[in-house]
Amino acid sequence: MIIDIHGHYTTAPTQLRDWRLRQIESAGTSFTEQLTITDDEIRETVGTKQLKNQQDRGTDVALFSPTAGGMAHHYGDEQTSIQWTTIVNDLVYRVHKLFPENFIPVLQLPQSPGASPLNSIAELEFRVKEQGFVACNLNPDPTDGYWTEPAMTSKEWWPLLEKIEELEVPAMIHVSMSCNPQFHGTGAHYINGDTVAFMQFITSQIFKDFPNLKIVIPHGGGAVPYHWGRYRGIAQDMGKPPIEEMLSNVYFDTCVYHQRGIDLLVDVIGADNILFASEMIGAVRGIDQNSGRYFDDTKPYVDGVPGITEADKQKIFQDNALKVYPRLKQYLKV
Amino acid sequence: MIIDIHGHYTTAPTQLRDWRLRQIESAGTSFTEQLTITDDEIRETVGTKQLKNQQDRGTDVALFSPTAGGMAHHYGDEQTSIQWTTIVNDLVYRVHKLFPENFIPVLQLPQSPGASPLNSIAELEFRVKEQGFVACNLNPDPTDGYWTEPAMTSKEWWPLLEKIEELEVPAMIHVSMSCNPQFHGTGAHYINGDTVAFMQFITSQIFKDFPNLKIVIPHGGGAVPYHWGRYRGIAQDMGKPPIEEMLSNVYFDTCVYHQRGIDLLVDVIGADNILFASEMIGAVRGIDQNSGRYFDDTKPYVDGVPGITEADKQKIFQDNALKVYPRLKQYLKV
Repeated sequence: MIIDIHGHYTTAPTQLRDWRLRQIESAGTSFTEQLTITDDEIRETVGTKQLKNQQDRGTDVALFSPTAGGMAHHYGDEQTSIQWTTIVNDLVYRVHKLFPENFIPVLQLPQSPGASPLNSIAELEFRVKEQGFVACNLNPDPTDGYWTEPAMTSKEWWPLLEKIEELEVPAMIHVSMSCNPQFHGTGAHYINGDTVAFMQFITSQIFKDFPNLKIVIPHGGGAVPYHWGRYRGIAQDMGKPPIEEMLSNVYFDTCVYHQRGIDLLVDVIGADNILFASEMIGAVRGIDQNSGRYFDDTKPYVDGVPGITEADKQKIFQDNALKVYPRLKQYLKV
Repeated sequence: MIIDIHGHYTTAPTQLRDWRLRQIESAGTSFTEQLTITDDEIRETVGTKQLKNQQDRGTDVALFSPTAGGMAHHYGDEQTSIQWTTIVNDLVYRVHKLFPENFIPVLQLPQSPGASPLNSIAELEFRVKEQGFVACNLNPDPTDGYWTEPAMTSKEWWPLLEKIEELEVPAMIHVSMSCNPQFHGTGAHYINGDTVAFMQFITSQIFKDFPNLKIVIPHGGGAVPYHWGRYRGIAQDMGKPPIEEMLSNVYFDTCVYHQRGIDLLVDVIGADNILFASEMIGAVRGIDQNSGRYFDDTKPYVDGVPGITEADKQKIFQDNALKVYPRLKQYLKV
């Protein structure tokens, strides 16, 4: 079985976006407009896109969350974020219910600049305990590009991290859109958010305090595997434990869109800490003229790693996901 | 000959740091304290460190600039930055005069948040025309971690970019320290600054407007070579020219501190756009227990790239530097 641990409902019907625009415009006032999306519209938008791609690419199931760029936690106030989060998590849950074999729900948190991370716990508990969500996306920068909130490794975040650990739902560290004109969203802010998080893990002690916390760094870990020597050296210079010790807690996905990148990822990080993922349909939507395949069709890259064993592919495609996401077992018969 | 295009005077006598601390404390008032550093102190601090490392590692000459982390453009106001820039550029010039065979000067610019990039031109022209500096470091984020200034590709920066092009001094894009507690300096802010810049080059047209501008992205290009497929795909999705076209203007250094990273860099970017560099003495100062060598001893990594030809090594170690930095020729007889 091939489990894609990183997919987003980026193809939702356009009325979702229109509703969101009106909601943002109304921020600070009461916004009670109902959003209507039919089951047929969900079937159509998923069936012709993500589901079709799954079938075409030979993958089996995706962990599916609201659009990461669309989390946009900086808009409005905390009430804006809570209302929006309810809408999109509901929608992802409906996708799961319509395609229970193919899409397993992962939630967005109702984060907001200035709001305590504690306030995200209610939504987390509800989705996990009542609706069977298996993981969450955690935005390390709810300002969406200015990074003026406390770091996710700071004490303010601990109650949320503690709950994530207790519920056994891995957190994918995933920034959202960039409202900072210096940062392109998917090309700069996304990748940089990954790198920032890893460096915060080096300088903090969160895995001492939360030894069972599982963190997934998407987009192949940002810049981290490419600069693995730099991080090993920085940790050593600072008198921190070897970064290899973090590999009991930190995992990297395969959203790296060329063969040589995946080769390095597998070689440097090792198959035990890599989770198959495509981010489909997401940051890069075109076909690579060099290969004739979609850039984000990442399975052939994994298959193509020189010398990769079937055992390692089994870990990357399936076994690691079952280990890192314990709640997946309720859905998958493997 | 082996030319290291990325070195900093990070070992300056401690009175420089002490002077700087007092200058920062005095920001906004007149600060006229003289800084005294003798030639012997410069000889000692360079001779036992960077020069010794050059000799030990078998490299010949370094392009040498003030400490990048120390630029710290956000402190005080523009006058603070101008005064500090004068001090450190003077010092680098003295290093060059004392070791003319080994260190070629590269300048810091007197950037400051809110100050026009235009105001950096006088220092640039003086150092290049009167003192023979061959390149400059350009900080894309003078706020040092908040990125609230206009992007370096925006019109505000054009007069400075135009002058850099006209003088034929390549600009190394190099952020400084991070005053944002979210960002570790050398582990996150440095690498992210590199990635941000490359993405800005994709979305802007600066190489259409400045076709002879030469940009060096340090630290192996941040996350860029590892995510080369992502950048190719994003550019294609946006209808931008293939990113390979930027390789007439953009070069990457070899400050990647492990073999597999350098392997990927050479394979993905190709020898024509890679410049040998170590960043010595800089971000990582320890010895890698795996190799028994300093992490930042990057020459063995280049030598160790599987299948690398002597011709490609010649480009990376020497020829590309002479091509990209035309003003180097006045110093080097090759």
